[in-house]
Amino acid sequence: MSLENFFNPKSVAIVGASQHKGKVGYEILSNMIDAGYEGTLLPINPKSEPIEGLQCYPDLKSTGQRPDLVIIIVPARIVPAIMQQCADVGAKSVIIITAGFKEVGKEGRELEQQIIQIARQAGIRIIGPNCLGLIVPANKLNASFGGNLPAVGAIGYLSQSGALLTAILDMANATEIGFSKLVSIGNKADVDELDIMEALACDEDTKVIAGYLESIGNGNQFVSKAEQISHDKPILLIKAGATEAGAKAASSHTGSLAGAEAAYESAFERAGIIRCSSIRQQFDYAQAFANQPLPAGPGVAVITNAGGPGIMAADSIEQQGLTFAKLSEKTIEKLASSLPAAANLYNPIDVLGDALADRYELALDAALDDPNVDTVLVLLTPQAMTEPVATAEAMVRVIRKNPTKPVLACFLGADKVEEGVRILRAGGIPQIDASERAVATIKVVADYVRWRSRPKRVVRLFPVNRRKVENIVERHLRQAIREIGETESKEILEAYGFATPKGSIATTAEQAAGIADQLGFPVVLKIWSPDILHKSDVDGVQIGLKSIKEVKDAFDLMMYRIPKKLPDANILGVLVQEMCRGGKEVILGMQRDPHFGPLMMFGMGGTMVEVLKDVSFYLAPLTADEAKQMLMSTKTYQMLKGVRGQEGVDIDAIAEGLQRLSQLVTEFDQIQELDINPYVVGPEGTVPIAVDARISVEQV
Amino acid sequence: MSLENFFNPKSVAIVGASQHKGKVGYEILSNMIDAGYEGTLLPINPKSEPIEGLQCYPDLKSTGQRPDLVIIIVPARIVPAIMQQCADVGAKSVIIITAGFKEVGKEGRELEQQIIQIARQAGIRIIGPNCLGLIVPANKLNASFGGNLPAVGAIGYLSQSGALLTAILDMANATEIGFSKLVSIGNKADVDELDIMEALACDEDTKVIAGYLESIGNGNQFVSKAEQISHDKPILLIKAGATEAGAKAASSHTGSLAGAEAAYESAFERAGIIRCSSIRQQFDYAQAFANQPLPAGPGVAVITNAGGPGIMAADSIEQQGLTFAKLSEKTIEKLASSLPAAANLYNPIDVLGDALADRYELALDAALDDPNVDTVLVLLTPQAMTEPVATAEAMVRVIRKNPTKPVLACFLGADKVEEGVRILRAGGIPQIDASERAVATIKVVADYVRWRSRPKRVVRLFPVNRRKVENIVERHLRQAIREIGETESKEILEAYGFATPKGSIATTAEQAAGIADQLGFPVVLKIWSPDILHKSDVDGVQIGLKSIKEVKDAFDLMMYRIPKKLPDANILGVLVQEMCRGGKEVILGMQRDPHFGPLMMFGMGGTMVEVLKDVSFYLAPLTADEAKQMLMSTKTYQMLKGVRGQEGVDIDAIAEGLQRLSQLVTEFDQIQELDINPYVVGPEGTVPIAVDARISVEQV
Repeated sequence: MSLENFFNPKSVAIVGASQHKGKVGYEILSNMIDAGYEGTLLPINPKSEPIEGLQCYPDLKSTGQRPDLVIIIVPARIVPAIMQQCADVGAKSVIIITAGFKEVGKEGRELEQQIIQIARQAGIRIIGPNCLGLIVPANKLNASFGGNLPAVGAIGYLSQSGALLTAILDMANATEIGFSKLVSIGNKADVDELDIMEALACDEDTKVIAGYLESIGNGNQFVSKAEQISHDKPILLIKAGATEAGAKAASSHTGSLAGAEAAYESAFERAGIIRCSSIRQQFDYAQAFANQPLPAGPGVAVITNAGGPGIMAADSIEQQGLTFAKLSEKTIEKLASSLPAAANLYNPIDVLGDALADRYELALDAALDDPNVDTVLVLLTPQAMTEPVATAEAMVRVIRKNPTKPVLACFLGADKVEEGVRILRAGGIPQIDASERAVATIKVVADYVRWRSRPKRVVRLFPVNRRKVENIVERHLRQAIREIGETESKEILEAYGFATPKGSIATTAEQAAGIADQLGFPVVLKIWSPDILHKSDVDGVQIGLKSIKEVKDAFDLMMYRIPKKLPDANILGVLVQEMCRGGKEVILGMQRDPHFGPLMMFGMGGTMVEVLKDVSFYLAPLTADEAKQMLMSTKTYQMLKGVRGQEGVDIDAIAEGLQRLSQLVTEFDQIQELDINPYVVGPEGTVPIAVDARISVEQV
Repeated sequence: MSLENFFNPKSVAIVGASQHKGKVGYEILSNMIDAGYEGTLLPINPKSEPIEGLQCYPDLKSTGQRPDLVIIIVPARIVPAIMQQCADVGAKSVIIITAGFKEVGKEGRELEQQIIQIARQAGIRIIGPNCLGLIVPANKLNASFGGNLPAVGAIGYLSQSGALLTAILDMANATEIGFSKLVSIGNKADVDELDIMEALACDEDTKVIAGYLESIGNGNQFVSKAEQISHDKPILLIKAGATEAGAKAASSHTGSLAGAEAAYESAFERAGIIRCSSIRQQFDYAQAFANQPLPAGPGVAVITNAGGPGIMAADSIEQQGLTFAKLSEKTIEKLASSLPAAANLYNPIDVLGDALADRYELALDAALDDPNVDTVLVLLTPQAMTEPVATAEAMVRVIRKNPTKPVLACFLGADKVEEGVRILRAGGIPQIDASERAVATIKVVADYVRWRSRPKRVVRLFPVNRRKVENIVERHLRQAIREIGETESKEILEAYGFATPKGSIATTAEQAAGIADQLGFPVVLKIWSPDILHKSDVDGVQIGLKSIKEVKDAFDLMMYRIPKKLPDANILGVLVQEMCRGGKEVILGMQRDPHFGPLMMFGMGGTMVEVLKDVSFYLAPLTADEAKQMLMSTKTYQMLKGVRGQEGVDIDAIAEGLQRLSQLVTEFDQIQELDINPYVVGPEGTVPIAVDARISVEQV
């Protein structure tokens, strides 16, 4: 969808324009005029004389025009009538600045419904209500009351908080950071975050998309669209309002470990969205993406005129897991022939405290020429001899000559480096005034490059018995049973290609002994009751029973003790099961997130999972690569590979289990939570066993 | 030791003063003059005419004075001669600016030795060499070439990097942050970081000590002195140059997990030092400590004129583990009666986008009066109606009236809030321009308050058999054996009150069976060789052997297989040991850090410790409280307390084990590394068993 009428309107009507300074209706009009808007400007106010020399119309109709964009500032209760006028004159797009809609409760929500209805019928698009407006510096369009028109640049910004946008504008103007578009999205009654992001994705003037969001509308759509956009343009988002409320009701291990944050993290990771924790961080990253080429690899060279900041940068590079570039011999020779003897020729290149601009120039030139260097970070402290201005000029000269690798600057100080910083920024070199933030920026850019070059996502589809699962799920839903018992949970898993341990239910000790004898010792006994979810909590699991006597004793003890602990539990018997020996226990799980759908979990299994929290999450459906990544991002992975002489397990078999589970929960929306715990995995070539499973379903 | 002659000299001689602008000898002299130094200023230069109107002397002697402070700027090779002159005229303290000493190699090191020798004999104290000098704003003393005299304030700063200090000065001057003293400590030939910190501790003008360090001289002394100082004044340090080199040679679990960083972290924690990762962070914290009272508790109230930043602050408060203060009913009534209906009266208090200064004033007043509020964070975005200046003035008025609780400001934006920010800073309200950094500052202050109020450290001394350990250790050292074998390691532990499993060495399968029979089944077999440190790596441990046959088989298999894997290992037999059942396995360990001495470790035991890295560190000697804290800061602790129906173990018994170990390694400097792994602990009231142990010693 094009938002061209918003971004580049030939005519703009301002309904509620005012001649009274301080009123929003005045501020917006005067911002439009001050910005030098070149189209037709139509102030509308029934009571007003000409404002700022412009003729004022009593209503939209009397302008005799069909404005591309109408800005509405009148009180909320009048807005529906104005919207109708917009429809009548054939206006194309509307920004509703006015507050007092959905955000104030029921009455406002109804008003908002009315205006949406009018807009839909008339084919009008709306930004807002309850927003700050819209700014397009290149088109001299400041349809906002947020502040002065900022510089033209390549950052497209959308914000769900108008107030934050005023602060951002003020900060950007002070540091001359430029924007392609700034949009305050307000209540998102019609145009939402995704519309703006898609418009910015197609916008030639935008190289990077940044934003502040408190909520996301349609999670699935957001993820898939954002993923497409991220391939072309990096997306930098601040997501505020993290809440743990969603996690509290969960009954599964996965549910209690996941929470809303895990879903957002996974969604952002899938979509390649770079999450920012503050405006400053976002500016750091946005500057780098907007002005510099992407690096070919992770190798960083540092140039400095002071040891201390050089060490701090080196520390950060190590902590961030970036590579400290090993300079080539040619580079070192080049540096040796032109720098003083005391200079450090290795990385960080220390041009010494008395370095003038020339040393920086040749060091930067040499570093950019080095095939081992992918990014250069230039540090400068304003010492007695230092030339911040000439150094900045030299740096800009060098990158113009050699514009293929990203260069970042970290000029430390304030007044002494101010002029130099201005030259850097004008020349497109991001200046970040703390080395650890500069290094964090290099890391984020390198991660983005890696994300972009990841293989195409191909989700493997396994042949499964879908019909069988449908039957079980539907029967439970018909009977309004949310929790699927262990036997049928395992049938579901078997239908999707999982192996489960053999076993049957016994209701007497004799029967238990008979089943055990048939399975072969040792066996496991598990209490069998729809009312007992976590069996080991009530000593309802006995493992390693090696004889008929042990089985009988364990059976009788369970039947005697557990009813005393849980007098209301309906105990159906005891499951006698073959024992899976020798493998390692992991957990596979899924928790359906209300926004983003099935969130897969992998972690160390057994009862320790909630204590050690060594788990990883990812949104379904999983590719083989993503399943493998889930394993590798836990510490448990080291153990699974084998440590200290212990044999490793079949990693690919676990990854396949995750993919099969991902297919199951993708095909069955009704499955809300699922744990396979433990999932016992043996050495390469063996088949893992889903020893215990819990599945809960819900009507959707 | 007093550094009064440095900080408040009545007369200052500058040896190497120059009339040539750009030379350091000129810069320092002109900085002294520009700062308005009121004592006697004596430029020394044999070749110079008067400089800047001041008479210039050919040498120190010809001044006829005994200067309190001599600043030396002449080339390194001449410095010893000048030092001798200082001694001859009876100068009291010397700052050597000149570089070219220890930092350039052997020759420089010798020069440095010479000047120290002269200084020691003459009782002269030296700052430097290779430093930037010293600044004391209140005394109008700018004995540096770092920049202009900054404002007078309560922050005392020491830096091991001169260049960094120039940047800090420039940043401080731009934001009007004030200092009591700034010292560039250079090579620390005489006066070192601890001397400066102690001087600042006694300095009435200093409320907070901040610094940048790359190395620390005497670790033990540093920790104990810094701990004393921290009680009165917070210490904020950037420690750069983290290195993992120290850890690489380690052979124990503890050693391979510890590394140099763990020792620094533990040392800083013990000493109450607040570690900063950047200059900006350090400024944030320093401002709060220097200008605001300490809070009584962790309850934070937020006042804002915008939802977005309020949410971001709330997110940060939750993430940092601070308390979102629940406002009292009285406060809410007060707010309700004076704020508009749409305002949010709960925390965060949203005074709305059109708030003028008056709403901020009454909200701040009400929040400070609330007994549930310990700290107030005031957020402001520069919206159309906002009054940054009047709001800042109102805030300063309120805290003057009610100065008992800390108030921090976060005015977002730049030019629009600039004047308001100046008023805040002048009024002693720290302004931090990002909410997450403001919240991080509140957290650091709250943590400091908690650290300061912790109980007095009392290290328990257990009755032990020290003589026995001495014998074993000395015998090993005499024979130049670094690794103490398992039997004697256990004897050492027994001498310090640890229980170890019973068992003996067998050299034949028959013998093994006999020992096992005597101990009672099940038993454990362990290969016995001084050359095999990690037995399980070579299948040298077999547990749970339940019969004479199993013991004989296991014995013969070990004796057959292990020599094939390790043909050079000297295998002395197999240890047959009673098996400790039912307990949980943890690891207790120690790695002696070259700077800070014995670093204790606690973590989950078994072979998984290096995979899961769920470990904690603390410097010995440990108090009972610290030992308990070590346990509690691991995830393993949850498991030890008991999860999901499993019985917990005796936590205090583990804590006692750590304290006994701490006593052992404190009393025996020769012990370099020590692991007890596993340390098997059972339910409350049982005695934990040190099942396996490794101790290595070195001559000290």
